[in-house]
Amino acid sequence: MASPGSGFWSFGAEDGDNERDNPSTAKAWCQVAQKFTGGISSKLSCESLLYGEGEKSPDPGTKEEMSSENKGVPSPYDKEACKCQQRGNDFSFLYSTDLLPAKNGEADTLRFLQEVMDILLEYIVKTFDRSTKVIDFHYPNELLQGYNWELSEQPQPLDEILLNCKTTLQYAIKTGHPRYFNQLSTGLDMVGLAADWLTSTANTNMFTYEIAPVFVLLEYVTLKKMREMIGWPGGCGDGIFSPGGAISNLYAMLIARFKMFPEVKEKGMAAIPRLVAFASEHSHFSVKKGAAALGIGTDSVILIKCDERGKMMPTDLERRLIEVKQKGYVPFFVSATAGTTVYGAFDPLIAIADVCRKYKVWMHVDAAWGGGLLMSRKHRWKLNGVDRANSVTWNPHKMMGVPLQCSALLVREEGLMQNCNQMHASYLFQQDKHYDLSYDTGDKALQCGRHVDIFKLWLMWRAKGTTGFEVQIDKCLELAEYLYNKIKNREGYEMVFDGKPQHTNVCFWYIPPSMRNMEDNEERMSRLVKVAPVIKARMMEYGTTMVSYQPQGDKVNFFRMVISNPAATLQDIDFLTDEIERLGQDL
Amino acid sequence: MASPGSGFWSFGAEDGDNERDNPSTAKAWCQVAQKFTGGISSKLSCESLLYGEGEKSPDPGTKEEMSSENKGVPSPYDKEACKCQQRGNDFSFLYSTDLLPAKNGEADTLRFLQEVMDILLEYIVKTFDRSTKVIDFHYPNELLQGYNWELSEQPQPLDEILLNCKTTLQYAIKTGHPRYFNQLSTGLDMVGLAADWLTSTANTNMFTYEIAPVFVLLEYVTLKKMREMIGWPGGCGDGIFSPGGAISNLYAMLIARFKMFPEVKEKGMAAIPRLVAFASEHSHFSVKKGAAALGIGTDSVILIKCDERGKMMPTDLERRLIEVKQKGYVPFFVSATAGTTVYGAFDPLIAIADVCRKYKVWMHVDAAWGGGLLMSRKHRWKLNGVDRANSVTWNPHKMMGVPLQCSALLVREEGLMQNCNQMHASYLFQQDKHYDLSYDTGDKALQCGRHVDIFKLWLMWRAKGTTGFEVQIDKCLELAEYLYNKIKNREGYEMVFDGKPQHTNVCFWYIPPSMRNMEDNEERMSRLVKVAPVIKARMMEYGTTMVSYQPQGDKVNFFRMVISNPAATLQDIDFLTDEIERLGQDL
Repeated sequence: MASPGSGFWSFGAEDGDNERDNPSTAKAWCQVAQKFTGGISSKLSCESLLYGEGEKSPDPGTKEEMSSENKGVPSPYDKEACKCQQRGNDFSFLYSTDLLPAKNGEADTLRFLQEVMDILLEYIVKTFDRSTKVIDFHYPNELLQGYNWELSEQPQPLDEILLNCKTTLQYAIKTGHPRYFNQLSTGLDMVGLAADWLTSTANTNMFTYEIAPVFVLLEYVTLKKMREMIGWPGGCGDGIFSPGGAISNLYAMLIARFKMFPEVKEKGMAAIPRLVAFASEHSHFSVKKGAAALGIGTDSVILIKCDERGKMMPTDLERRLIEVKQKGYVPFFVSATAGTTVYGAFDPLIAIADVCRKYKVWMHVDAAWGGGLLMSRKHRWKLNGVDRANSVTWNPHKMMGVPLQCSALLVREEGLMQNCNQMHASYLFQQDKHYDLSYDTGDKALQCGRHVDIFKLWLMWRAKGTTGFEVQIDKCLELAEYLYNKIKNREGYEMVFDGKPQHTNVCFWYIPPSMRNMEDNEERMSRLVKVAPVIKARMMEYGTTMVSYQPQGDKVNFFRMVISNPAATLQDIDFLTDEIERLGQDL
Repeated sequence: MASPGSGFWSFGAEDGDNERDNPSTAKAWCQVAQKFTGGISSKLSCESLLYGEGEKSPDPGTKEEMSSENKGVPSPYDKEACKCQQRGNDFSFLYSTDLLPAKNGEADTLRFLQEVMDILLEYIVKTFDRSTKVIDFHYPNELLQGYNWELSEQPQPLDEILLNCKTTLQYAIKTGHPRYFNQLSTGLDMVGLAADWLTSTANTNMFTYEIAPVFVLLEYVTLKKMREMIGWPGGCGDGIFSPGGAISNLYAMLIARFKMFPEVKEKGMAAIPRLVAFASEHSHFSVKKGAAALGIGTDSVILIKCDERGKMMPTDLERRLIEVKQKGYVPFFVSATAGTTVYGAFDPLIAIADVCRKYKVWMHVDAAWGGGLLMSRKHRWKLNGVDRANSVTWNPHKMMGVPLQCSALLVREEGLMQNCNQMHASYLFQQDKHYDLSYDTGDKALQCGRHVDIFKLWLMWRAKGTTGFEVQIDKCLELAEYLYNKIKNREGYEMVFDGKPQHTNVCFWYIPPSMRNMEDNEERMSRLVKVAPVIKARMMEYGTTMVSYQPQGDKVNFFRMVISNPAATLQDIDFLTDEIERLGQDL
C-alpha cells in the first residue's frame, strides 16, 4: 500500500499487475473489442487494460489475498511499466482550454470525449462481469489520504483528468453488477444510460417549453400514461417528476394541505387548525421528514399499526382518525404504502380508501418502490385500489430500473399543483409569449430549475414496451420467490415474517452454526444483532456481493434482500446464500 | 410540412436535404472527423450528415425561407433517400433485450452505445457552430402531432430508438450555442459533460459512503473549498448539494427556523411564535415559495425596498424589522441576494450583516447567480460581507458553467443540518457499520436518495483550476460591459437603470424607429410592452439567438441580457444588437 499522503494518481503499475494477474479478464475484453467493428476496437484491443488489481475474481477461500498490502491504494505511478499510458500521453499537453469552444478545438474535443467514452464502455462491460468485484472497498481515510483530491489554483492537463475518471470508477460501486443487492435501485439499463448521456448533452431545464420543448412534451405524454396505468379515468390529472421519492411525498402532503386549507399558502400554519397525518409504522421516514419541513411537526404524524406482514391495519387507522377528530384536530393526509422499504408490504388500499372517503381525508399512495408492479399483469392486483388515491408517488428508478434519478408524483385533480405552488414570477413565466403557455410547467413545481429526468424513462419505455418492463419485473419477483423457497426451511436461516414475499423483499436472519442450538434468550439476541453487520462488512471487504441489513421494531438486525436488477439470475441468488454461509460460519 | 398526425419518426429525407442545402457544414464536419484518428472518423466521415434542414445558417434577409413549409415537421420517412440510414439498418433487428446484461451482449452493446455517442458528438460540434440555429422552434401542437411519441405495449427496435435520440436533439435548444443568452445557465463545458456522462454510468446515490465512496469524499472536499472561498475560518461548516437554488434557499430557511426554535421539528408551527422572513423586492421568488411550503406563509415574507439599481436598502430592512418586532412577531431570516435574477444587483452584505447581528436574525445570502464571482480576484469584492452569512446558496451551474444541475447550500454552523433533518432511519443509516459514519451524509438531507451532482463540478475545477474559472467569468463580465458601453447612448436603446452592470445582466428597452419621437405617455407604454415579446418570438422563429425579457415592478417588458457562456464573443454581442434591430425595425 502506498504510504498515506503519497498524493498522486496512479494507474501505471496497476495495469501491469492486471495483465499478469488476470489474463482471463483482459482476454475477454479484447475479444469483445475485436468483435466490435467500430472505432473503439482499434484502441481497446490493446493487450493491456486500464484497470488494476482488486478487479480480479476474488477467491472465496483466500482471505489473506485481501490483506491491506494487496487491497491498499495502488503503488506509485511508474511510466515505464504501462503501455496504456503511452496512449494517455497524447493528452498530457492538452488542457480544457484546448477543447470546444476553443478555436479549432473540434478534433481534440472529439478525441477527448471518445477517450472518456472508452473508459465508460470498459466500465460498463466490467459491471456485468461476475468475475469483477462489486466494490473495491477502502475506508474513508485510506481513500482521502491515498490520493490528491484537492482543488487548486492551477489547471491539470487532460491526461490527469482522464486518470481522475479512471480512479473514480475504480473505487465506485458497480450498482449494475448482478450481485449488488444493497438498495432498491440497482441495475444499469443500456438504453436508459444512453438517454441519460443525451440528457446531459442537451443540458437544459424543465421550467418552460421554450427551453425544453421535447422534454416537456415527453413528460406530458409519460405522466398521462402513468395516470392511465394507475386507473384514473382517461389518464386525467396532473403530476411532475421530482428529485426523489421523499420530495414526491412532500409534494403530496403540501398539495393535500393546500386543498383543504388554501389560505395556508399566504397565512401559514398559524391560520389553520392543527393538522394530523397518518402512515403505517413501516412507512418511509420521508412522511415524517415532510411533516417536519412543512411546519406540521413529526408529533402530528401518527404511525398506524401493521399486521405481522407489515401491512397497515385499516381498523387501527379508523380508530386513530376518530381519536384525532375527538381531540379537535384535523386529519388531512393518509399515506398508504405500496411496497414498504423493508418488508415490501402492500397496504390494503381499498380498505384504506374506504376509510379516507368516510372521513374525507386525502389519500396518498407511496408506491415509490411498488409502483413498478403496475406494469405486470401478474402482480398489479397488489395495488388494487390505487385508482382511488388522490396522489401517488411512483419511482421508475427503483423497480423499473431507470437510471437515478426518476421519481414521479401523480395527482388526480388537475390544476391543484399550479394553484398550490405558483408565485407568478414574471421574469420566467411571461404571460405574453407566442405559444400555448399550459406547457410551461415550472410554476407548479416547488423548485425553480428542474432537472430533466424524463427522457431516460420515456426512451426505455419505447425500447422495452410495457411488456418489456413486465418481463423484467416478473423475473425479479420470481427470483425473490426462489430465494424464499430455498431458505424458508433451510438450516441456519430464520424468516423475519412468514409467507411468500409480495414484493422482491426477502427478510431473514442467518444463524451461524455456533448459535443454532441456543435458547431464545437475551444472550442469543445480543449475539444475533452482530451477525449481519459482520457478514456485511466481510462482503464489502471481499467485494463479492452486497446486501442490506437493519433492525425493524423489536426485531434485531436481519438481512433484507431485494432484487430489482434484471441482470440477476438464479445462480446469483445461490451465490448470495453460499457467500453468507461462507462468511458467517465462524461467528 | 407533414400532415399532422402522420405519426412516425423521420430523418431520411432530411439527410438528403442537408447535403444539398448545406454542403459547407457537412464538409466542415467531415474535415473534423477525418482529422480525428480514432474510431468515429470511419463512421462519421461519410458524405452525408444526420441532421436536417432548419440547421442551415439562417439568412437574416429571407424570412420567406422560414415559412411553415420549410420549417415544418419533416416530410415522411424515405429509406431510399438516405445514405446514413443504411448504417442505421444494422440496428433494425436488434432490441434492448439484445444488449447487456444479455448473454453475449457485449458487442451489440458497444456498437449501440458508440452509435449514440456519435450522435451526441455531432450535436456537440454543431452546438458551437454559429451557422446552425439555436433552436428549430415548433409550436407544441405541431411537435405533438407531427410525431408519434406514444408509449405502447410492444418494444421498438434499436434503430427506432436511435432515431428518437436524433429527433429529440433536432428540436432541442442548443443551450451551449454562443448566441443563446436566454437563461442564467448557458454553455456546454466539455469536461463537465464528460463528468456527467461518468456520473450517469456510475448510477448511484449520495446517501451513504457505502454506495458512493468517491463521490461522498469529493463532495466533502469541494464543499470545504467553497466555504474557504466564502471566507469562513478554516473552511469549517456544513453543506449539501441540492436539486437547485430554490431548494437550497428552502433548506436555509428550514435550518434557520430550527436553529431558533428546535421544537418546531416535532411540534410544528403551532408551537412557536409567528415568524417573519425578509428579502428584497428584487429577490428570487423561491423565498416566498419556501415560506409557503414551510407553513410560514407568503404574507410573512416582507419585501424590502431596493434602490434604483435593485439593491436592498438596509435602512428599510431595519425599519421593517423593528415594525415586525413591535407587532410581537419574530424576525428569523433575512435573505440577501448576491446577484439578483433580473438586474444582477448585489445587496450590500456588510450593512445587512450589521442589521442581522443587531437583531439576532439568521443571515442567508442567495448567491445562486452571483456566487461564481468569488472565483474572480477582480470581482469578488461585490460579495464583501458574505463571510458573515449563516448560510449561502451558490449555484455552480450558473456563472461557473457546470452542467445542470449543481447547486450548493453552505452552512456556517456544523451539525445543524443533521439535527434539523435527521430521522434516524435504521434501514439506511445503520449505526453499527464498519466505517466512519460521519461520511454518511444522507440523514442531513431533506431528500432520501440524492442525485450525484458533485463530480462534474469537481472535475471541472481540477481541469480549469480556480484561475480557469476566473478567466471565463471575467470574460463574461467584460462582454457585458462591452454591451453596456455599446448601447447606453445608442439610438433606439434605453437603459432600465443607469450605470455599469455589476454582474453580466444588461437590462434595456429597444425602441423601434416608429416610437422614437413619441411622448412618454400611456400610449407609448402600451406599445412598448409588446415590442420585446414580438422580437423574442421572431428570434425563436428564425432560431438565430435567444434573450429573455420581462417586466419588473412598474417597468414594462424589457430585455434582460445575461452572459454566462464562455463561448460567447464580442461578435456575438454585436450579432445580438443587429438582430434586435433587424427584427424590431418595423414595429
